[in-house]
Amino acid sequence: MSQYDAETTLSRRPAGSSDERNVWEGRVSGAWNIGENPNGGYLIAIVQRALSELAPQHPDPLTLTVHYLRPGVPESPCEVHGELLRSGRTLSTLRGTLLQEGKIRLEVLAGFGDLGMRPAAPDLTLAAPTIPPPERCVRRSGDEQGVALPLLDRVDVLLHPDQAKAGSAGKAEVSGWIRFVDGRDADAASLVLFADAYPPSVFGLLGLVGWVPTLELTVHVRRRPARGWILGRFTTTDLADGRMVEDGALWDSEGHLVAQSRQIALVIARD
Amino acid sequence: MSQYDAETTLSRRPAGSSDERNVWEGRVSGAWNIGENPNGGYLIAIVQRALSELAPQHPDPLTLTVHYLRPGVPESPCEVHGELLRSGRTLSTLRGTLLQEGKIRLEVLAGFGDLGMRPAAPDLTLAAPTIPPPERCVRRSGDEQGVALPLLDRVDVLLHPDQAKAGSAGKAEVSGWIRFVDGRDADAASLVLFADAYPPSVFGLLGLVGWVPTLELTVHVRRRPARGWILGRFTTTDLADGRMVEDGALWDSEGHLVAQSRQIALVIARD
Repeated sequence: MSQYDAETTLSRRPAGSSDERNVWEGRVSGAWNIGENPNGGYLIAIVQRALSELAPQHPDPLTLTVHYLRPGVPESPCEVHGELLRSGRTLSTLRGTLLQEGKIRLEVLAGFGDLGMRPAAPDLTLAAPTIPPPERCVRRSGDEQGVALPLLDRVDVLLHPDQAKAGSAGKAEVSGWIRFVDGRDADAASLVLFADAYPPSVFGLLGLVGWVPTLELTVHVRRRPARGWILGRFTTTDLADGRMVEDGALWDSEGHLVAQSRQIALVIARD
Repeated sequence: MSQYDAETTLSRRPAGSSDERNVWEGRVSGAWNIGENPNGGYLIAIVQRALSELAPQHPDPLTLTVHYLRPGVPESPCEVHGELLRSGRTLSTLRGTLLQEGKIRLEVLAGFGDLGMRPAAPDLTLAAPTIPPPERCVRRSGDEQGVALPLLDRVDVLLHPDQAKAGSAGKAEVSGWIRFVDGRDADAASLVLFADAYPPSVFGLLGLVGWVPTLELTVHVRRRPARGWILGRFTTTDLADGRMVEDGALWDSEGHLVAQSRQIALVIARD
C-alpha cells in the first residue's frame, strides 16, 4: 500500500454506537508535516477517505472547499464526521469535519462526481506554462524556509530554477513539478493535496515574509491525471491588508489542465 | 427599509423549541427571480442574515462558499439553520443551510471578519478594466435570455455595449455596472449577491447555449465598497466536459478591487 493510502486510513465506528452522523476514527501521521503542523492537503486527504465511503458512485472531487480552523496535531488520533447532504445522479454533495482532541481542525464542503476515463477535448482551457524539465529544476528545501519539511519525504516538489529561492522570482509566482515519492500515481483526490504542497507564491516577490496560513482553499478537479509528473503554477495578484488570494493550476504529463485552485491566506510577518 | 433588507428578513425561532442548532424562519420572495427560480445570490443573502447574528463582531464575509443543491421556491417560506464552528479574535467560521419544504436548497460555509473602514493601499491588486460609463452601457435584458428576469427590478445591471448581446463579445467575458435599484448602498455582504447577478460569461463566446446552473460559488470580499456603481468583470478560460470555471472581480466607484469570485457551473444545452 502507498504511504498516502496507508497514512490516511480510517475505520468507521460501528453504527448505533454514536450520534446520528457517520463517524470514522484514524490517526494523523507526522510524516506529512510542514514544520510542526501537518500539511493541510494531507488532512483533507483523510477527510476525503471518509467522504468517499458515503458516495462510492462518485469518486472524483469536482469541487472541494476547506476551512482550516486550527492546526492539526501530528502523531495523534483523529475523528472524521461525514454527512451526505444530497445524492443526485451526477453529483453528491457532502460535508466533513476533522476533529482532534475534541476540537474542529478542518471543515470541508464538497461536490463529488465522476470525471470519466475518456473526456472530450476541452472547449476552453488554460495552457500549461513552459518550464525546465524536472531534472533541471530545484528540490523544494525546508532549510530555506527555516522549518523542517517532513512532507518532502512524501512528495517530491521540484521548483523552477528561477523561482526556487524565495525572493528570486521577482513576482508572486511559483511553478514546478510534483509527484508522490513512493511512485504512487496521482488520482483526482490527490490533486487536492498537490494543490496545497508548494511554497506560497508571495515568497517569490517578498522573500520569506513569514507565516502564510490558509484560511480557505477551494480546488476544482477538472480531469483525472495521466501517469507521471504533475506541473503546478501558483500566482498572487491580490495582496491587501495582510490577506492574499492565490490562484493555482495543475497540468498532467500529457499537458492537460487537471485542476484549478484558489485560496485566501493570511500573510503574517516573521517576528 | 431597502428592498434587499426587507426581503431577506428572518425571525429567530425561540430557543428551546427546536433542536440544538440555531434556526431562523423567513420567506423567499419572487422579486429576485431568474426565470422561475430565485437568484442564488439572493438566497445567500438570506443565509447571511442568519449568520450575521451568530458573529455580530465580524460583519464582513472574507470568504463565502455556497453549494446550490436544489432551486429555491419563490413566494414560499424558508428555514435557515446556522452553526458557529469557531469564533476567534479576527475570524468567525460559520456554516448555514437554507431549507424549503424540508429539503436543503443551499449549503454555505463562510469565514467572517472585520475589513475595517480605512484599509492601507494594497501590496498587489487587480486593476479595473476600462469600460464605457453606465450611461453608455446596455441594460441586461431578460427578453434576450428567453426568461423573465424579475431580478432586474431589484438590481440594475448595465453591460458593456460590446458584450451585451449573447455571442457578441467573441470571448467568454462579460463586464458592466451594477447597483441596487432602490438606491441602497452596497456593503460587503451584498457584494456576494452582485457576484452572482451577471449573465454567464460563456454566453459571450457561445451565445445562448442554454442553462448554466452553478454548482459551487466562492466569493472573497476584499474591501468594503465606496458608494456608487460597482464594476464587475467575469471570464471563463476553462470549459470542459460540460463544466466551466468562471472567475469574477468587482471594483467600487473609486477603482478599488472589492471582491473576487470563482464558480463551477454546468453548461447544459438548450433542448
